[in-house]
Amino acid sequence: MENSPKAIRCKAAVCRAPGEPLVIEEVEVAPPKAFEVRIKIICTSLCHSDLTFWRRQDFSIFLPRILGHEAFGFIESLGDGVNGMEVGDAVVPTFLSNCGECRECRSEKGNFCSVAPFSVFPGMPRDGTVRFTDAAGQPVNNFLGVSSFCEYTVVDIAQVTKVDSALPPEKACLLSCGVSTGVGAVRKIAAVEAGSSVVIFGLGAVGLAVVEGARFQGAAKIIGVDVNPDKFDIGKKLGLTHFVNPKDNGEKSVVEIIKEMTDGGADYCFECIGLASLMSDAFNCSRLGVGKTIILGVEMHGNPISIDSAEILKGKCIMGSLFGGIKAKTDIPILAKQYLNKELHLDEFITHEVNFMDINKAFDLLVQGKSLRCIIWMNQ
Amino acid sequence: MENSPKAIRCKAAVCRAPGEPLVIEEVEVAPPKAFEVRIKIICTSLCHSDLTFWRRQDFSIFLPRILGHEAFGFIESLGDGVNGMEVGDAVVPTFLSNCGECRECRSEKGNFCSVAPFSVFPGMPRDGTVRFTDAAGQPVNNFLGVSSFCEYTVVDIAQVTKVDSALPPEKACLLSCGVSTGVGAVRKIAAVEAGSSVVIFGLGAVGLAVVEGARFQGAAKIIGVDVNPDKFDIGKKLGLTHFVNPKDNGEKSVVEIIKEMTDGGADYCFECIGLASLMSDAFNCSRLGVGKTIILGVEMHGNPISIDSAEILKGKCIMGSLFGGIKAKTDIPILAKQYLNKELHLDEFITHEVNFMDINKAFDLLVQGKSLRCIIWMNQ
Repeated sequence: MENSPKAIRCKAAVCRAPGEPLVIEEVEVAPPKAFEVRIKIICTSLCHSDLTFWRRQDFSIFLPRILGHEAFGFIESLGDGVNGMEVGDAVVPTFLSNCGECRECRSEKGNFCSVAPFSVFPGMPRDGTVRFTDAAGQPVNNFLGVSSFCEYTVVDIAQVTKVDSALPPEKACLLSCGVSTGVGAVRKIAAVEAGSSVVIFGLGAVGLAVVEGARFQGAAKIIGVDVNPDKFDIGKKLGLTHFVNPKDNGEKSVVEIIKEMTDGGADYCFECIGLASLMSDAFNCSRLGVGKTIILGVEMHGNPISIDSAEILKGKCIMGSLFGGIKAKTDIPILAKQYLNKELHLDEFITHEVNFMDINKAFDLLVQGKSLRCIIWMNQ
Repeated sequence: MENSPKAIRCKAAVCRAPGEPLVIEEVEVAPPKAFEVRIKIICTSLCHSDLTFWRRQDFSIFLPRILGHEAFGFIESLGDGVNGMEVGDAVVPTFLSNCGECRECRSEKGNFCSVAPFSVFPGMPRDGTVRFTDAAGQPVNNFLGVSSFCEYTVVDIAQVTKVDSALPPEKACLLSCGVSTGVGAVRKIAAVEAGSSVVIFGLGAVGLAVVEGARFQGAAKIIGVDVNPDKFDIGKKLGLTHFVNPKDNGEKSVVEIIKEMTDGGADYCFECIGLASLMSDAFNCSRLGVGKTIILGVEMHGNPISIDSAEILKGKCIMGSLFGGIKAKTDIPILAKQYLNKELHLDEFITHEVNFMDINKAFDLLVQGKSLRCIIWMNQ
């Protein structure tokens, strides 16, 4: 075909050693294959999952790799068989696919599309091959099918959602992972009801998005638990009503404190950190008969949770999700509209902005707990 | 008051040593106190929880005790403050209360009434005292506030539900615990949908009641797992479509077999035995993205469940309940009506009937796995 897209040379931030600064280098981005599009990334941001894959020694087998999965951009070219998307469309890539046609996508429940199943392996979802080559001609691995820490990237159409062009790029970017995960978990997984009590362990971006979602649903009591007292101020702007700092409570356990604050136990307890011990704490301060514990954090050390089944018999429930139960193509446009209608808060999540060349600053800020979301602009 | 009820002397089957045959002896049953009624028991039956409290050494501190909590009878006398109930009313006692007025009872969710909270301790729910005295003048402990292995018993009104007098006593009896638990868990806890796949670990009365409930809801695939092949025949009568005997499958694990049978995992997995290892199996063969594991068995050894939180993040859920989420006063009449309308099967659950004097035969049959429900008639 005369107008077949060609490979593009551009800048990428490549992870070459676990926990070491990313290296800005030139890479070649292959043209999109069938059912793929190539996206010109406008901005991207850094999520805790990127940190996990960046620093864990056991993931070093997947290096070199281009990380990044929360982003906004425009479609630059189309592979074969792409319908309903055009060059120039404003889009967000998402780490979970949503083909819209498989059994899972057609069901009202769940969000585990089977066309491009979630995988931490290095290649693209349909054929397992990679789309990046470094200056030495060596392949560079993809990450979650997105790899947004690059000026251009190739993404499967099941992982691409069109967004309203009225939405500012940095706000659209937030909806492609973290904020959607927190708000989605409140609405679609927990189904938090007006008047209920909600506890959030960990007030990072996902935890604060849970706060935002809980306020949106009309929760009466929204209690944040974090060792960083600065999180109370930002939390209050989103709807946090109470704050518990485990360091400030002497002999009393967090579980005891939460039970006192909620007349015996909270209706909904979210774990947004990724520690098995906190998952147990969340479960233990949930309300007998009705309490739901929602796991959103990825356990940092791979430890299992240990649960007393007698407590489950008392009507408690443990649930979880990736991406907050969000089906990208149907749910992200709803969130975008609610932001444009000023019903949903997004601005508060952006605490920092840097140029792509300074992407390692974004890592420093998140590691130090100073940022919620640092927007990384590709062309400034 | 001239017509105040007096103590009654009658026969009881008393548990005096763990795992030893019950002793039929004469006891004195005190008059009902405020918010209590005294019930003339017509029939009772034996549930696995009775067995647990009968044989476990660590519960021997509560002996002597009158066990039994699944029963039918007529109100014989009323304590003070009892409204809406009359002498002669046909009733079933239930081990979980349902006062109808507390926060929990007014909520649509959960079934943990706070007026007479579930307790395994020896006394009555409101004042902790007991209502039975033996021939030597010594107190005999109550059990779950019911103690139906006695010709007369005193029960808190929050634990008494009136039933349609058209319902045969032995069918009403089944609704007071086991069958309601299984059917209730399907409807109220899991909310099983038409067309879904359901797996049941353990085809005792509760497990078979799950089968019955799943058929009622229109589940497409209902798979029973049990080491006793005889359970397939009774299961089929209630709606079981497939049967897996773990002893018959050589190298393959039950989890592998179930995943193959359900195209990757079942929508709903019920554990109705009470073994942590089977609870994990149930969880592991539930479907990614949507699978619910429902714990109904009381863990026999008090072991915790160990769960990989990464599996929960993939959209799985673990939940449970006592009494299947049933609110006795509202839900038992619905089940009774469905039985009278021939929509709900109950007859199949009654495999044996004995005279009260032969109550120990009912224990033998259940211990040997020969019975589902053995109806124990008080006056034959």
